[in-house]
Amino acid sequence: MTRRYHQVKRTSVRQRRELIILQWEMDSKSIVLAQRRLGSLESRTKFLKTIYSSKILGLSTSAKMSSKFKNAKRIEGLDSNVWIEFTKLAADPSVVNLGQGLPDISLPMYIKEELSKIATTDSLNQYTRGFGHPSLVKALSCLYEKLYQNQINPDKEILVTVGAYGSLFNAIHGLIDEGDEVIIIVPFYDCYEPMVRMAGATPVFVPLRSKPVDGRKWSSSDWTLDPQELASKFNSKTKAIILNTPHNPLGKVYTREELQVIADLCIKYDTLCISDEVYEWLVYAGNKHLKIATFPGMWERTITIGSAGKTFSVTGWKLGWSIGPDHLIKHLQTVQQNTVYTCATPLQEALAHAFWIDIKRMDDPECYFNSLPKELELKRDRMVHLLESIGLKPIVPDGGYFIIADVSLMDADLSDMENNNEPYDYKFVKWMTKNKKLSAIPVSAFCNSETKLQFEKFVRFCFIKKDSTLDAAEEIFKAWSRQKS
Amino acid sequence: MTRRYHQVKRTSVRQRRELIILQWEMDSKSIVLAQRRLGSLESRTKFLKTIYSSKILGLSTSAKMSSKFKNAKRIEGLDSNVWIEFTKLAADPSVVNLGQGLPDISLPMYIKEELSKIATTDSLNQYTRGFGHPSLVKALSCLYEKLYQNQINPDKEILVTVGAYGSLFNAIHGLIDEGDEVIIIVPFYDCYEPMVRMAGATPVFVPLRSKPVDGRKWSSSDWTLDPQELASKFNSKTKAIILNTPHNPLGKVYTREELQVIADLCIKYDTLCISDEVYEWLVYAGNKHLKIATFPGMWERTITIGSAGKTFSVTGWKLGWSIGPDHLIKHLQTVQQNTVYTCATPLQEALAHAFWIDIKRMDDPECYFNSLPKELELKRDRMVHLLESIGLKPIVPDGGYFIIADVSLMDADLSDMENNNEPYDYKFVKWMTKNKKLSAIPVSAFCNSETKLQFEKFVRFCFIKKDSTLDAAEEIFKAWSRQKS
Ligand SMILES: Cc1ncc(COP(=O)(O)O)c(C=O)c1O
Ligand SMILES: Cc1ncc(COP(=O)(O)O)c(C=O)c1O
Repeated sequence: MTRRYHQVKRTSVRQRRELIILQWEMDSKSIVLAQRRLGSLESRTKFLKTIYSSKILGLSTSAKMSSKFKNAKRIEGLDSNVWIEFTKLAADPSVVNLGQGLPDISLPMYIKEELSKIATTDSLNQYTRGFGHPSLVKALSCLYEKLYQNQINPDKEILVTVGAYGSLFNAIHGLIDEGDEVIIIVPFYDCYEPMVRMAGATPVFVPLRSKPVDGRKWSSSDWTLDPQELASKFNSKTKAIILNTPHNPLGKVYTREELQVIADLCIKYDTLCISDEVYEWLVYAGNKHLKIATFPGMWERTITIGSAGKTFSVTGWKLGWSIGPDHLIKHLQTVQQNTVYTCATPLQEALAHAFWIDIKRMDDPECYFNSLPKELELKRDRMVHLLESIGLKPIVPDGGYFIIADVSLMDADLSDMENNNEPYDYKFVKWMTKNKKLSAIPVSAFCNSETKLQFEKFVRFCFIKKDSTLDAAEEIFKAWSRQKS
Repeated sequence: MTRRYHQVKRTSVRQRRELIILQWEMDSKSIVLAQRRLGSLESRTKFLKTIYSSKILGLSTSAKMSSKFKNAKRIEGLDSNVWIEFTKLAADPSVVNLGQGLPDISLPMYIKEELSKIATTDSLNQYTRGFGHPSLVKALSCLYEKLYQNQINPDKEILVTVGAYGSLFNAIHGLIDEGDEVIIIVPFYDCYEPMVRMAGATPVFVPLRSKPVDGRKWSSSDWTLDPQELASKFNSKTKAIILNTPHNPLGKVYTREELQVIADLCIKYDTLCISDEVYEWLVYAGNKHLKIATFPGMWERTITIGSAGKTFSVTGWKLGWSIGPDHLIKHLQTVQQNTVYTCATPLQEALAHAFWIDIKRMDDPECYFNSLPKELELKRDRMVHLLESIGLKPIVPDGGYFIIADVSLMDADLSDMENNNEPYDYKFVKWMTKNKKLSAIPVSAFCNSETKLQFEKFVRFCFIKKDSTLDAAEEIFKAWSRQKS
C-alpha cells in the first residue's frame, strides 16, 4: 500500500496559510457575491495549488486502494446528483440562473431581523430539544391545528428536521424496510428515488400523463394520474406512496377528487402516505391546496412534510418538519436521534418568531403566506408570456415557483456536445448555459431511467427571481429568437 | 380501523389559537430562559389541552394500528436516548444543570456578531454548496493543512455536516455494511452503538481499564487499552474502529504510543479509523492532542471528525466536518446528498469568519483555541477540589469538559426509586436531580449492556459552566456533605 503521508516543511505551510488568508480578506469584501461565486472556488483552489506547487510537497495523489474501502452497498450507484452538477455550471457570475430553486427576491425584513437579534443571545446558540425547539413546535402546532381543524401535539406529532429533505429521509429510513415497495409519481423531486433505494426498497413508478390540449393553453392540471394505472401499482408489498402537491417540477396542485383516489387506494391497501407539501402556500388564483392528511382515514397513515426554506424563502436555513400521528412520528424521531440528534437552535428560534408574526395576521394580505403567492403569480404570468412570445408552449403551473416548457423547438445545435448518451435536456441545458449564459434544470432529472425519454424535451425554469434577473432572462430569450428568425 | 379525524368547529380552533398566541407573547419576554424551560413545554401543553378540553373535540386517541406501520427493522430497539431522558429532567429551572455538554459561559463576541451581521444579507440565507459552503471549506482546509502539515483539498477531502453527529452518521452509513464488525472502545459517546447497529453491523466492544492508583490522584491517563485485548478484537470482518480523543466522558487524551498501537492494528488488518476529535482544542497542561490521521499509513484510512459546537462553544449551531482522503470522503458525500443535501448557509458563513479570526492569531493567547482550554482548566481544577472536598475521588481529565466520579460513597437513599432494573447511576442521577436539584449524566449511558455494571457507580459532571453555576453546584455539594457528617 502506498503511504500518502509526507512531512512538509513548517515554513511552506505557513507561507501558504498567509497567502490564503490574504486572498480571503480580499474576498470577504464582497461576501454578498459568495452565492454566485460558488463554483469558482474549485478553479481558485486549483490556482492556489499551482502557486504552492506540488513540487514543494512532493505529494503522491494516487494511493492503491484497499477493496475494503468501497462504499457501503446501500449507496451503490447513488452518487450522481443533478443539483451538484448544474449548480456548479450556473456558478459562473455571468450566467443568469433560473436553475435551482434559489430565491433572489428580497426577503421579508422581520425574518432576517429576528435571526440577527437572536444570534446575540448566548443561550440561543446552544443545544435545544432534539425533536424540535419548544417555541418552534408550539408555533407549528398552532398553525397546523388551524389548517387541520384538529389538535396537534407539539411534542409527539411534530418533528423538526434538517429541511424537508431531512423529513423525507427520516420518514423513509424510519418506516420503509428492505423488500418493501414504494410508489413514486413521475416526474418527482429527485431525491425520492435514491432515498427509497438506500432503504433497500423498490421504487414503483407511475407517470402523470398529459391530456391533449389542442389550441388551449397547456396547464399543469392537464397532467393527471390514470386511476386504473395507479391502482395497478398497489399490492400487498406496497408500504407507501410519496405524494407531492403543489408539485415540483410541474406546478400541479392536486384536486379533491384526485386526492380521494389516492386516499381510497391507501386505505384499501393499508399503505402509508408521505405527503411532500413544501409549496403549500404557493398556489395561484383558482386553486386551493388540500392536505390529504385531513381526508377521512388518512391522518393515521400520513406524514405531511413542510419546509421553512419554501415557506419563508430562506432555503439556506435548512429547517423542515414532519407532522403526523404519534405512532408514525416516533419512528422518525428514532432516526433523527441516531443521525443528527437536533437542529440548529438560533434558526429554529428565529423561525418560530417569524411564524408567530404571520400566524397573527393570516387573514391580512401582508401575511407572507398570502403576499408571496401574489408576488409570484405576477412572475409566473410574466414567464408564461415570455416563453410564449418566443414560440414555446409552457405548461402553466397552478402552484410552486417553477415552469416547464418543451424546448426542442429552440434553435440549439447540440451536435458538438460531449457525452452523447445524456438525455436531450441535459445537453440542452449545458449548451444553453455555455452559449446563451442562461441556466435551467433538465426535467429528465426528475424521472427514473425508464421515463427519462418521455420528458427529455422539457426544461424547468425557476421564477422566484427579482425583476432584474427576469429582465436579463428576457433579453437572452428575445435575442435568441431574433437570431433564429 | 378507527378513523381519528374529526371535524372541529372553526371557532374553537380560533379561540385556542388566540390563547396560545397570548401565552407566547407573555413567554417571549423571557426567551433567554427558553433553554431552561425546555421540559416545561410538555406540562404546559397538557395544561392547555385541559383548558381547551377534549370535550370540545371529542378526540379518540387510540387508533387500532396496522401491523404495516411498525418501525423499519433497522431502528428496532434504538429508540431510547440518554440525552432526551435526562435533558427533560434537568429542564426544571430550579435545577443546577451539570448534565448535557451545554456551555453556559459567555460566548466570544465575534462569533455572535458575525452571525448577527450575516443574517441580514439576503443571499446568505439561501442554499449553498451541498458538501460545504465555499468559504467554510476553505477556512477548514487552511486550518487543518497547518495541523496535518499536508495539503487538504477543500472540495474533495472535507465534508461539512450537521454537527459531528452528522459526520459520524455519514461515515458509518457510507462505509459500513451489514455483517461488518466495528470496534468501539468503552465507555463511548453514546450514539456510536446505535449508528453501527442501524447500519446492520456488529459493534465489538473493548474496555478502557484503570490501573490501581493507591494514594495518588486518579487521572484519565490511568485508563488504558490492553494492547493484547485490543488486538484480539480485530479479525478479517473488522471494517472500522471508532476512536475518540480527547475522550468523552473520561477526558482521556491518547498518547503517541497508544495511538501507534491502534494505527498498527488498523494497518495490519486493513481497517478504517473513524476518529472523533471534537474536543481537539480542549487539552490541559502537560498533554497534547495528536491526530492519528497524521501517523504513517493512516491518512488514507482515517476519517477525522470535528465540531463547531465544541470548537467555538456554539453547540446549537450543529455544524461539524469530516476530513479524509477523497476515496473515503466521496462516500460520505453520497450519504449527505441523499439525506440532508446541504447545511445551513448563514451559520456556515459565520463559522468561516470566526475561523479566520482565530486562524490569524493562532500563536496568541487570545486565540479561542488557546484561551478556552486555559479558562476550562481552572474550572476543571475547581471541580476536582470540590469533589475531593466532599470525599469523592474524581478521575482528573486531561482533556474535554467533563469529569467523572464514583458517587457510591455519597449519601443517597435510592430505595424509593421506581424502575429498579435501571443501573445504579441512572437512579442516582434521577434521585439527585429531584432531591438535590443538581443534574448530571450517568456514565453507564456510555456503555453497552454488558459493561454497564462496570461503570454504574460513575456519574459525569460537565464543567463548561459560568462561575455562578459552579458556585450553585458547590453549595449543593457542601450542604449535602454537611448533612451526611
Ligand atoms: C418538492 C420538494 N421537496 C423537498 C425539497 C427540499 O426542501 P428543503 O430545502 O427544506 O430540504 C424541495 C426543494 O426544492 C422540493 O422542491
Ligand atoms: C465525543 C462526541 N462526539 C460527537 C458529539 C456531537 O457533536 P455535535 O453537537 O457537533 O453533533 C459530541 C457531543 O457532545 C461528543 O461529545
